[in-house]
Amino acid sequence: MNFGIVAVIGTGLIGGSIGLGLKERGLAGSIIGVGHRRTSINKALRAKAIDEGTINIEKAVKQADIIILATSVDLIPDFARKIIPLMKTSAILTDVGSTKNYIVSQINKEIKSKHKGNRPNFIGAHPLAGSEQRGIESARPDLFEGSVCVLTPTSLNSKKCITRLSKMWKALGAEVSIMTPSKHDEIVALVSHLPHLVASGLVSVIDEKYWKFAASGLRDTTRVASGDPDLWLGICKQNKARIIKALKCFSKEVKSTLNDLEKGNDNKILKRLKKSKAVRDKKKWRKG
Amino acid sequence: MNFGIVAVIGTGLIGGSIGLGLKERGLAGSIIGVGHRRTSINKALRAKAIDEGTINIEKAVKQADIIILATSVDLIPDFARKIIPLMKTSAILTDVGSTKNYIVSQINKEIKSKHKGNRPNFIGAHPLAGSEQRGIESARPDLFEGSVCVLTPTSLNSKKCITRLSKMWKALGAEVSIMTPSKHDEIVALVSHLPHLVASGLVSVIDEKYWKFAASGLRDTTRVASGDPDLWLGICKQNKARIIKALKCFSKEVKSTLNDLEKGNDNKILKRLKKSKAVRDKKKWRKG
Repeated sequence: MNFGIVAVIGTGLIGGSIGLGLKERGLAGSIIGVGHRRTSINKALRAKAIDEGTINIEKAVKQADIIILATSVDLIPDFARKIIPLMKTSAILTDVGSTKNYIVSQINKEIKSKHKGNRPNFIGAHPLAGSEQRGIESARPDLFEGSVCVLTPTSLNSKKCITRLSKMWKALGAEVSIMTPSKHDEIVALVSHLPHLVASGLVSVIDEKYWKFAASGLRDTTRVASGDPDLWLGICKQNKARIIKALKCFSKEVKSTLNDLEKGNDNKILKRLKKSKAVRDKKKWRKG
Repeated sequence: MNFGIVAVIGTGLIGGSIGLGLKERGLAGSIIGVGHRRTSINKALRAKAIDEGTINIEKAVKQADIIILATSVDLIPDFARKIIPLMKTSAILTDVGSTKNYIVSQINKEIKSKHKGNRPNFIGAHPLAGSEQRGIESARPDLFEGSVCVLTPTSLNSKKCITRLSKMWKALGAEVSIMTPSKHDEIVALVSHLPHLVASGLVSVIDEKYWKFAASGLRDTTRVASGDPDLWLGICKQNKARIIKALKCFSKEVKSTLNDLEKGNDNKILKRLKKSKAVRDKKKWRKG
């Protein structure tokens, strides 16, 4: 299995890990890293996450068979706009963004307006792996092993391209799950975006002088609040409606808990705690 | 340094780790474990967390120099009631409960009603260490190293006893922090009890079929929700007023975030995320 020339736009944690993973498994003819700055390209080269590096996106994209947008979500549509007129129509353009509805609709609009006949394929993707860390320093070839990667193809995509991209993610160790961009956004609003805002909110309400008394419980509950604020603002903007819905649902749950505490509804509190424990204990978490 | 005969009532994670820690450092003449069931005593003996074990609380308590109540919080006042008439007046009675105001006031009331002249000392304690795991299987001699242990002495305690108990916790590797029971409860409501209810609430609002897509973010944010429901109901009951206050404050924060999202106040959202990241990044977490 070989996916040809793979261009990775953005060589941070996710882009770098894709590069390392493909290289370690001998799955690419060549991996070209594209960055804004020469220094980040050099770091990716030293980490052996890419075979070649350039700040010239045109040069990388023209020859690529798969082009992966691995930048923060707010930059993905603009990069796609630049890439679409340059890429081979046989190539696949994809991304790794945490939101899909906005990105897929923006990019598909662009593709439809620029290509009438033989259109290049854009397939939205979101590997559900990562951490609050960023940068090539945290990249690892096995980052996606045992994780789930969501693909959100549309009617514009060929079966062949969907299969090719699925194979790439499976080769990197991920389980591929295919759904609509909207379904994806609904799910991640709950399992990822809501926990982020909740963690950040928890930090906000705790007086700084009390952090001395925080132990592993607060450490873990708030870990994601150390994530990149600009990246998360981009996610909040792009998945706004779904996040608002999730946060409203959570706010209702908090009020209900408050009500049970105030009224001394011990049985309801216990039932709630038991239910949550049972649901969480069922999940098998992957390592790392 | 030797703390004489130490009776540990309840040989779970915390009680077992105290036993292991004292024994490893040669700090006790003897450690007597007291349990409800012979099987749990035998487990603690096999783990070498105690020197002797008994289900006869009277026998253990009569000879002890330090008696540590390491049961769940709801059982602590009743155990204290049994122990107070039996213990040597020179001995120290202490606990490891996650709440202090209720426990300290209940036990002090008992001491004042039972002893007129030479009163035994009860000093509330709360080592801020542990995990969602329970049981002797997770106990370790270094559990308290680098952690903070809060002591909440009152005017009923002698300076000598406070110093002795402080020395024990310092010998186990903890930093000792002395404050009133009320202050303790205010702080832990924020840094421990609130995160627990928030984690449990997060689990509640996420549809079970979506857990497949949960990654390390949700794993960590909700870890504490796997804690023991009965134990946590006890904590909620005993620290009810402070927890309600903390949860109200958090509920306000959630509403404020919702409002910023709905109004598209991007600058406010970014400021909030940045502030939380900065506060959290400042904290140095101990390992484990």
